[in-house]
Amino acid sequence: MSKSWKDHSNLSMLTDFYELTMSKGYFDHGMKDTIAYFDLFFRTVPQGGGFAITAGLDQMIDYLLALRFDDEDLAYLRNLKIFSESFLEYLRTFKFSCDIWAIPEGTPIFPNEPIVKVRGPIIQAQLIETALLSTINHQSLIATKTSRIVRSAKGRPVLEFGARRAQGYDAAVYGARAAYIAGVAGTSNTMAGQLFDIPALGTMAHSWVQAFPSEYEAFAAYARSFPGSAVLLVDTYNVLKSGVPNAIRTAHEVLEPMGERLRGIRIDSGDLAYLTQKSRDMLDAAGLKDCRITVSNALDEYIIRDLIQQGAAVDSFGVGERLITSKAEPVFSGVYKLAAIEQNGRIQPCMKFSENATKITNPGNKEVWRFFDRSTGKAMADLIALAGEEIDDSLPYEIFDPLHTWKRKTLTNFTVRKLLEPIFIAGELVYERASIETCRQRCAQELDRLWDSLKRFENPQSYYVDLSQKLWDIRDRLLHSNPDLI
Amino acid sequence: MSKSWKDHSNLSMLTDFYELTMSKGYFDHGMKDTIAYFDLFFRTVPQGGGFAITAGLDQMIDYLLALRFDDEDLAYLRNLKIFSESFLEYLRTFKFSCDIWAIPEGTPIFPNEPIVKVRGPIIQAQLIETALLSTINHQSLIATKTSRIVRSAKGRPVLEFGARRAQGYDAAVYGARAAYIAGVAGTSNTMAGQLFDIPALGTMAHSWVQAFPSEYEAFAAYARSFPGSAVLLVDTYNVLKSGVPNAIRTAHEVLEPMGERLRGIRIDSGDLAYLTQKSRDMLDAAGLKDCRITVSNALDEYIIRDLIQQGAAVDSFGVGERLITSKAEPVFSGVYKLAAIEQNGRIQPCMKFSENATKITNPGNKEVWRFFDRSTGKAMADLIALAGEEIDDSLPYEIFDPLHTWKRKTLTNFTVRKLLEPIFIAGELVYERASIETCRQRCAQELDRLWDSLKRFENPQSYYVDLSQKLWDIRDRLLHSNPDLI
Repeated sequence: MSKSWKDHSNLSMLTDFYELTMSKGYFDHGMKDTIAYFDLFFRTVPQGGGFAITAGLDQMIDYLLALRFDDEDLAYLRNLKIFSESFLEYLRTFKFSCDIWAIPEGTPIFPNEPIVKVRGPIIQAQLIETALLSTINHQSLIATKTSRIVRSAKGRPVLEFGARRAQGYDAAVYGARAAYIAGVAGTSNTMAGQLFDIPALGTMAHSWVQAFPSEYEAFAAYARSFPGSAVLLVDTYNVLKSGVPNAIRTAHEVLEPMGERLRGIRIDSGDLAYLTQKSRDMLDAAGLKDCRITVSNALDEYIIRDLIQQGAAVDSFGVGERLITSKAEPVFSGVYKLAAIEQNGRIQPCMKFSENATKITNPGNKEVWRFFDRSTGKAMADLIALAGEEIDDSLPYEIFDPLHTWKRKTLTNFTVRKLLEPIFIAGELVYERASIETCRQRCAQELDRLWDSLKRFENPQSYYVDLSQKLWDIRDRLLHSNPDLI
Repeated sequence: MSKSWKDHSNLSMLTDFYELTMSKGYFDHGMKDTIAYFDLFFRTVPQGGGFAITAGLDQMIDYLLALRFDDEDLAYLRNLKIFSESFLEYLRTFKFSCDIWAIPEGTPIFPNEPIVKVRGPIIQAQLIETALLSTINHQSLIATKTSRIVRSAKGRPVLEFGARRAQGYDAAVYGARAAYIAGVAGTSNTMAGQLFDIPALGTMAHSWVQAFPSEYEAFAAYARSFPGSAVLLVDTYNVLKSGVPNAIRTAHEVLEPMGERLRGIRIDSGDLAYLTQKSRDMLDAAGLKDCRITVSNALDEYIIRDLIQQGAAVDSFGVGERLITSKAEPVFSGVYKLAAIEQNGRIQPCMKFSENATKITNPGNKEVWRFFDRSTGKAMADLIALAGEEIDDSLPYEIFDPLHTWKRKTLTNFTVRKLLEPIFIAGELVYERASIETCRQRCAQELDRLWDSLKRFENPQSYYVDLSQKLWDIRDRLLHSNPDLI
């Protein structure tokens, strides 16, 4: 039996096969040292939202630090009989040497702006496409979805409970990580807790209750094992006739004699608005006003919003499959496109053409700027410019819509910030890796700098992501130089 | 910096935290050696299909073989300050000792029948819940989705291209594995190719074409590097005005002088029905009747069915995000429920009650039988019975609907087969692990044994999954013994 997993310390083979065939092609044609620029960006915000949240940079760094082809990898490739020995030797001595810039994790991002920019030998920049996309697409998807769910809960804690329905182990573990960056209070996933120092939590399943002769005995036993943290699951039989009365009895007869209070109950089925209100009344009447009510069962931002609107008495929400798979839209549309090639030291912009105007890419070596209003602190617009362009925040700056160029707006009284930060220079990590708490705080702070109108679940206001005049001119020139092709 | 990945040789911490708190609870209450039975089953077929395909058993075996708590795990748990030293010592010396039965990978499965059955010390059987569900749910989801897509292609090869949009690395790698079991001809995922000996394939991206001064130079260079396998991507600029003419020129001017034929072209955008027909005409007229046409771009079973119906000239389909995430329904509804507890050597059936009749579980230690028609070989019905019940295939057998018991049918002229096979006995692997090719063949053969009416994408015929009289009686007795609770 061969092992059916790959040590995550080397994911170099997690690449679409065509990255390897193209690499061999570049190698054959003396192009391996040609310097290329690639942009990783996305085209549409999931679920029609106003923005996405970027995540995954830390795993991308892990991947790149470990990039190498070991003997097993080379043996596999050799055996396919389409790679030359000279190319395999190149892979054997492969040393990552690209420059990479990225927008830090937890930052709100918008369509078409580079989230990651790669500059380096084309053979290398091409080879990393698949793993970069897989990493950033997955975690940005979950961070974006989680942000919606957390906002719907209006300050009540949201707990991530999705491991059992996640699309594999990494989806569970890195999904929990992205969810924490985007604001969940904790996760049920013990491994995510261990790896990322996220609060891991959870109490009991229905099977615990069923394993005892009676619900009361099950609650009492659990309370004795975890007097300070027991949250009792009250819906195995009947919430109001059995579960809540037995929880109250456990509080009075088991916990209070130990000097403890009942921490909480959880309801996982039924009409959650009705059941939480009735349970709240019963708990309050029993002197358990401090007993918290958690609900779960196929929750998402819409159900949570409705529950709150209907006056459900909920203190925290456990969210599973709809968060960990981003069920309503399980794909993040990140792509990785060639933007320029250096020839004799000059940057030649490249562009992907399309009949569909929104699919035409932005050429060249670019930079992303975010403008903030000086008086409110809120984000006003993003600008994609050529690298090297400077913006003077003491002067008005006119932005315009790249498709409808008559739509113009002059920004004044602003501050600006470059969003892309250097991560690798010549293959060396230059970025000070941020802790997950830093990413989480950044996410909360940057969300505060967005207007509420962008945060609506349906029909959010659209945000300006414009091109600098210089970038627009290059794009326009390339478009007109190929009139037949569009 | 702490590493942000966990060696897949030990996934013991990939468990919901409540599995650990319940384990400690069972340990505290002297129940750690209580023998419990758990069933893993699912409730609804994704996308309203007629059946699902089970997959993931091999990774489940890997997980169970490696189950142990190492010093790092114990240090993490100790630090949470809710686990006693005696419980941590139990985990340190933990040795898996359960019995496990499972339905082999690639088998069509139906709602409510146990796919995996676990018998063993409750503390152990509980602890493995999350990883079992995550493994089986993910791979069964992808196998089920893939089977739909492969069937829609009516014998034309389907290629799995989804790594970049998968929900993490495992989703890409194990998703490709499940897809291969369910019938894709190959994958773009090199790591999946390497680990599972699946054909890994792929040719070029738009960036290859853009990196050369002209499309023809890009094609010619690629053809020289891969004369025997080049498939040229013809939609970077304009398929009919530029891509196909340049591909034809490459065939004539580069490949034919080398004694090679152009293997294929790929089209990744635009009106695929129209473009493939026109491309086919152009290729045929140029003497390239053997040049195959592959299409890709957000394909799924519905789009493929429509393309074929519209006479698209397609030889193979590359399918990405909609397969690897099962985009239309990205969650497989597998659950893991306590079915029985042994007390003084007697099996006490357990049941989860619910207001919703379809959510009431089947109690007891069970077996799943499949009935096949002797003359056609087709599957007629499945029966969930108590373990130990025997079925005599020389006598008629009456089955009945467990909810509507007046719906009855007498089966005659049948053969029967038990679907659950022993995997572990007393913690020892007793199952001869099947190769992926065996699983793939099983899947194809077992699909042949289902009537076409079950394979419709919409409103398939529903298949009988009935209970034996003995099982039904136990269930009925338990239901009536708790009239207040429902």
